[in-house]
Amino acid sequence: MGKSKNKKSINEFGKFGLIRHLTSNVIIRNKTTITGIGDDAAVIDSGKNLTLVSTDLLLEGIHFNLIYTPLKHLGYKAVIRAISDIYAMNGTPGQVMIALGISSKFNVEQVEDLYEGISLACKNYQVDLAGGDITSSLTGMTIGVTAVGRVEKSNIIKRDGARANDLICVTGDFGASFMGLQLLERERKLFVKEKVTQPDLAGYEYVIGRQLKPEIPVSALTGLKNEEIRPTSMIDVTDGLASDLLHICRLSGTGCRIFYSKVPIDYETSKLAEEFNIDPMVPALNGGEDYELLFTIPLEMAEKIKMVESVKVIGHMTTFGSGYYIAGDDGSEVEISAQGWKE
Amino acid sequence: MGKSKNKKSINEFGKFGLIRHLTSNVIIRNKTTITGIGDDAAVIDSGKNLTLVSTDLLLEGIHFNLIYTPLKHLGYKAVIRAISDIYAMNGTPGQVMIALGISSKFNVEQVEDLYEGISLACKNYQVDLAGGDITSSLTGMTIGVTAVGRVEKSNIIKRDGARANDLICVTGDFGASFMGLQLLERERKLFVKEKVTQPDLAGYEYVIGRQLKPEIPVSALTGLKNEEIRPTSMIDVTDGLASDLLHICRLSGTGCRIFYSKVPIDYETSKLAEEFNIDPMVPALNGGEDYELLFTIPLEMAEKIKMVESVKVIGHMTTFGSGYYIAGDDGSEVEISAQGWKE
Repeated sequence: MGKSKNKKSINEFGKFGLIRHLTSNVIIRNKTTITGIGDDAAVIDSGKNLTLVSTDLLLEGIHFNLIYTPLKHLGYKAVIRAISDIYAMNGTPGQVMIALGISSKFNVEQVEDLYEGISLACKNYQVDLAGGDITSSLTGMTIGVTAVGRVEKSNIIKRDGARANDLICVTGDFGASFMGLQLLERERKLFVKEKVTQPDLAGYEYVIGRQLKPEIPVSALTGLKNEEIRPTSMIDVTDGLASDLLHICRLSGTGCRIFYSKVPIDYETSKLAEEFNIDPMVPALNGGEDYELLFTIPLEMAEKIKMVESVKVIGHMTTFGSGYYIAGDDGSEVEISAQGWKE
Repeated sequence: MGKSKNKKSINEFGKFGLIRHLTSNVIIRNKTTITGIGDDAAVIDSGKNLTLVSTDLLLEGIHFNLIYTPLKHLGYKAVIRAISDIYAMNGTPGQVMIALGISSKFNVEQVEDLYEGISLACKNYQVDLAGGDITSSLTGMTIGVTAVGRVEKSNIIKRDGARANDLICVTGDFGASFMGLQLLERERKLFVKEKVTQPDLAGYEYVIGRQLKPEIPVSALTGLKNEEIRPTSMIDVTDGLASDLLHICRLSGTGCRIFYSKVPIDYETSKLAEEFNIDPMVPALNGGEDYELLFTIPLEMAEKIKMVESVKVIGHMTTFGSGYYIAGDDGSEVEISAQGWKE
């Protein structure tokens, strides 16, 4: 790797830019490596099937705050996060492995709670806890999760298969998890500042559930199989709808056009966004952690896709160079950009 | 998992005790899960071959100190650590995946250095960097490494296959990495306390190399294949020779007896231990991070094993209940125990 003598800060460079920069010279040496960096999971040839491996790091204070995240929920979510990447390649997860770093502030009961959540997610999604290590840490909790799955060679769906005119589809709704987090964060601040001990979460059970105990839209995947609809590309929405759509566009070499009025947003999300004085479209496009699926299908499937419950068409792919736009009902168009670390 | 209402601290419980406790009720649901928790890597059925997956977490301040660990070496070691588990099951690593957590104190050049080390290890061991993610962290650096490998079904070597009378063999020598760390730590303290800016490391290049840039004894594995010696059990020595030997004994249901005079210790290790006023056998048995292989072979192989370079027989397995002993030349016997977190 050529030294650039570049003392830029990481934030300046941008997360995805940095990953691309660091891995641009990666050489693939093994013929079993089908897809490396750049998709939801690594794809490894195992003979008849493909093995999918995804890995994730969850850091206290960044990915979770233990003040409002029960450890059981955290364990559950850690598994969801890892297996979500396997589902996003149309695979079936089989195993998860947990590497846990914990400081001495934790006791055995707390770690039991965490593992209870892990076990429950394993049970609900029929995966095996196939490995685990625990190591001491200086501060806080770190969770490394690896998920392994498999998919038949002919069934894999990657990020790079979308074509111009393909329909852009999503499962579920967006922005709820982000708004749930804002609510929990607000109540935490009230607790710290004004000693309000009873958080006021009534009426917002849905958004809080979406933040603390997300689920994977498995029924939509089953629906697609039943209707014999094969997506041309797929990704799970964890970084945010905008960012993840741009991933697909970049890897597929397309532009995109989605519609404001088509992006599904739950009533609680809208109501809470209003309370916080923010446009609900902001968390819907850039919130992240939705754990919904974003995928593209050929235009011919427009009628068939209506048969699949909880799936909505939000726009279509355009040719490369046509830009990335979200269109309002009034005909206005705004360019889509990824928030947070630069795309 | 039954709540024990046990508010014991984690240290009291012991690392391995805690892992066993947390995973004692784990249910295996998929027939592709061959071996789960308790070996070097998870073993997954992939048709003709087995897929091996290992995962590790490296935390700043616990597993490495950036004051004396160059980032390039750290990247190299992170890969070694993960693929070592694959070799320890007689597999061939094919892919590694890196999940990196970094705080804003790092700049792009530093992350480039880390990736240079990762790339070099990938090149030297012919593995592919097949995935990676970078996330921001509040403090310091966290590295999650996942390695994927494969092994033919008939060739896998696990931890539980040792039998009484099997010979206990090791590659290389022990305690060097630990003593290298002590030396680096001493020089760091001198630097902090007395502003000695030029560390005095002359004459100790071997132990420092073993700490900063460990290698895997691949030639010994090739030697075993060439001589058609199939170990009955195998493990890589990362926790310490004593601790890892006890792992094999516990899983195989055997006792063991090794000999003081047979444990290989390099001259530099002994000399430095003397300087530090410690018995060289302490780092050799309990130091850890040796990245050597510990394995057992049938007694009949006693002559044949002499043909394999860099392998030494250090003792033999005994029947279950005979205890775990290290014997001196004078006939004295001391019970082996694992240091650090309780076994």
